[in-house]
Amino acid sequence: MDPRPIGVFDSGLGGLTAVRELTRLLPGEDVVYFGDTGRVPYGSRGRDSIIRFARQDVAFLLQRGVKAVVCACGTISTVAGALLQKTLDVPFFMVVDPSCRAAAKATRTGRMGVIATNATIASGSFQARLGELAPGAQVFSAACPLLVPLVEAGHIAPDDPITAPAVRYYLEPLAQRDIDTLILGCTHYPILAPAIRRFFGDGVALIDSGQQAALAVAGFLAEAGMLSGREAGGACTYYVTDDPRGFAKTAGIFLGTRVDDRAVQVDLGVLEGMNSEQ
Amino acid sequence: MDPRPIGVFDSGLGGLTAVRELTRLLPGEDVVYFGDTGRVPYGSRGRDSIIRFARQDVAFLLQRGVKAVVCACGTISTVAGALLQKTLDVPFFMVVDPSCRAAAKATRTGRMGVIATNATIASGSFQARLGELAPGAQVFSAACPLLVPLVEAGHIAPDDPITAPAVRYYLEPLAQRDIDTLILGCTHYPILAPAIRRFFGDGVALIDSGQQAALAVAGFLAEAGMLSGREAGGACTYYVTDDPRGFAKTAGIFLGTRVDDRAVQVDLGVLEGMNSEQ
Repeated sequence: MDPRPIGVFDSGLGGLTAVRELTRLLPGEDVVYFGDTGRVPYGSRGRDSIIRFARQDVAFLLQRGVKAVVCACGTISTVAGALLQKTLDVPFFMVVDPSCRAAAKATRTGRMGVIATNATIASGSFQARLGELAPGAQVFSAACPLLVPLVEAGHIAPDDPITAPAVRYYLEPLAQRDIDTLILGCTHYPILAPAIRRFFGDGVALIDSGQQAALAVAGFLAEAGMLSGREAGGACTYYVTDDPRGFAKTAGIFLGTRVDDRAVQVDLGVLEGMNSEQ
Repeated sequence: MDPRPIGVFDSGLGGLTAVRELTRLLPGEDVVYFGDTGRVPYGSRGRDSIIRFARQDVAFLLQRGVKAVVCACGTISTVAGALLQKTLDVPFFMVVDPSCRAAAKATRTGRMGVIATNATIASGSFQARLGELAPGAQVFSAACPLLVPLVEAGHIAPDDPITAPAVRYYLEPLAQRDIDTLILGCTHYPILAPAIRRFFGDGVALIDSGQQAALAVAGFLAEAGMLSGREAGGACTYYVTDDPRGFAKTAGIFLGTRVDDRAVQVDLGVLEGMNSEQ
């Protein structure tokens, strides 16, 4: 048994979809969330910036004494994940492998789609892992740079006058490829699942990457005997790099519960000064 | 005569619309541009973050020995502009005052609109200045948080399947107010002028805030005898906080010319360490 908290981080708010699932699965665990809201979005930045930011984010969580780290961000997982994993001595979970396993299990026709940020799609990480797990499968991908801004601006209704045409614009080419499974490769996208389902109908299985990452860490901690042993009462603390009030306002969309004053601001200067090499 | 360069800064790429105008008006001046592409967008961040970032941006330009500073960003001008102005001992220009003067001159009916980022509209700066310059005028405003991401993702064609409905969504309420003049209060928005014109037709005068800021600094330097005295051959150097190659690729949309390898990366750690009180 291990009473230490589970650390979850993301470039901003998307990782909260993993936190929601984690607290549902393991209500007795403490969770420390770090969201880099002062530098979000990572998905449109260069590779070197993403790697440097991600190292600082992880260093912050380790200082909080976490027993495991969940990278609940498609962009960081695919661009910096392999590098981060090498330098860590706590268990480390990302969104790519669990999502690809779930997709390979869900598909009947072997025709799968992946949607994510520019940086994630350019990395080819999802495509490569699916190729290993499901040889012979056909994988079609689409970068959707506007979906994160749409979610963060609150345009999440399936019939929203901007979201509906944006979803059609990005997904029409995948629909023409006749996919039967779609990985939502950015942890913001589950918020748009109703809009995506409205476009595709019920014929396409949607894989929620935040949920899959939460399932992976929960399964690992249980098997390794690293759970807290508590049945309920776990606390969640949120650290962000922009105004915590702005964060608390939007976080409700992702969590389905209120954050109120449990969000604390971390100075970006402190973060930039962290030993990025662990 | 003063051979020093003119400093222009923005949270990202939008300020390049001011640089384009400046180099057209004053082809003999050197220009130093700073774009905080590693922390863009400012418009959705909290007030304290915007002020801290802006102070660091200005400190960077002053270190480069500029003779004047142009804040070519609606968000910074409206949220941090007054604070910055107090601490500077070089001439300082922003987008609000010149744009409001141009709008007050252009309107015939006194019914004016302002579109900008969340932070700019919430600051009320444009609305207040227009009220001073044109007493009795009626000013209608709209925050348009998706227009910057649309421009940065390259969705700039008037008939773009996402931009066209987004422009309609934001501008329809202003059209119903029967405005005859619209301030594009974010320096990204002139890139969408064709899409906005397509929505409004020719009946609405569009005020380009980047262009107006450039006109203001050019006029001041000429009157104060602070121009370089050169007729042509001014050089432009670009400093950014994310990958300069990514910047160079998109900058062409704003400048109409190529940046190539004239963009240099500034480390965010160095920037965070700058004396932000000047």
